[in-house]
Amino acid sequence: MTPPPDSPPDRRPGGRTARIRAQVLDAVRTELGEHGYEGLTVEGVAARAGVHRATVYRRWQDVGGLLADVLDAAGEDDWAPPDTGSLRGDLTALNQQIQDSLVVRPSIPQALMAASFRSTRAADAQQRLWEDRYARCEAVVERAVERGELPPHTDARRLLIAATAPLYHQLVLLRTAPDPGMPADAANTAALAAAAGAFTRAAPGAP
Amino acid sequence: MTPPPDSPPDRRPGGRTARIRAQVLDAVRTELGEHGYEGLTVEGVAARAGVHRATVYRRWQDVGGLLADVLDAAGEDDWAPPDTGSLRGDLTALNQQIQDSLVVRPSIPQALMAASFRSTRAADAQQRLWEDRYARCEAVVERAVERGELPPHTDARRLLIAATAPLYHQLVLLRTAPDPGMPADAANTAALAAAAGAFTRAAPGAP
Repeated sequence: MTPPPDSPPDRRPGGRTARIRAQVLDAVRTELGEHGYEGLTVEGVAARAGVHRATVYRRWQDVGGLLADVLDAAGEDDWAPPDTGSLRGDLTALNQQIQDSLVVRPSIPQALMAASFRSTRAADAQQRLWEDRYARCEAVVERAVERGELPPHTDARRLLIAATAPLYHQLVLLRTAPDPGMPADAANTAALAAAAGAFTRAAPGAP
Repeated sequence: MTPPPDSPPDRRPGGRTARIRAQVLDAVRTELGEHGYEGLTVEGVAARAGVHRATVYRRWQDVGGLLADVLDAAGEDDWAPPDTGSLRGDLTALNQQIQDSLVVRPSIPQALMAASFRSTRAADAQQRLWEDRYARCEAVVERAVERGELPPHTDARRLLIAATAPLYHQLVLLRTAPDPGMPADAANTAALAAAAGAFTRAAPGAP
């Protein structure tokens, strides 16, 4: 949904096109939270957004296109991972944000993950969003390396997956009741494993 | 689907009722693998199983009931976690089984997880199956404690979640390409964290 170079003046940020997009994506999130994927229709979204449905069809084509744009829009924010001064603190705060986003009802991230099993376009956009979020989180590991908390050749992605995967696994797939200790537990586990060298790659050029 | 105490003689294991159930559940798995949840219908399952659809409706009611019984049937096997002689070896072998089951195409476990977002009955049965599988896997941790590889007050469930969650997270939610090193990496991470005391509970009666 990035405007092409020859876009008309009203496509500037804050212009009419951007305003319609914001209204439509808000409507998608609300409808998704209320009815889930099942209840999501282009007509329902257009009506709730107060936008002509022809506009929605032209710009987003179908429900998959709407979901994909909600996911792409989620990646356009300036979110950065928490910076608490320690690896364990950063991972715990990150996990707390993840847990909060998954246990709130309705949980839009949960609904989007469920929807990504239904639509290829949503699945592709969900994958882009994961990739973007994990890439931003690498700052947590870089800071820990700079502070000397971690060895230089630490595989940031593996460490971040180890720290966060138990929350998604339990709250999305296993559907276990939220445990207030889970964010810190999973963070501690990853930090202890990291200190024990679990994510250390061979130095470049090493045999 | 356990037969009630007053079940007629043909409900004995291997009897007609058991045979029909096996045919129907095989048909559910095949249809699910070929068409996913979208293409799953009571009529299609009955036709493939060669069973009258009234029989399927009477016994399973709907697609949710069929999926729930496939999941319950998966828990009726005599599966036990691998026993290789070491914690790291057991967890790696377990993760290899998980990875194999998730990357094969079609993957019935993947299809059942996706379906559990669509049907409450399937979600409940999926939860029972996870619970049963993780309970059986606690033997891995018990053996490691007996061998002296782990302290006695190790939280088996947290260790098992830490060891296995990265595979489910990456292969089911993140949809990253399978990495042949992932089963051993995730197992090593959990084993290193365990050795560093990540899953040690306070001894009963301790302050």
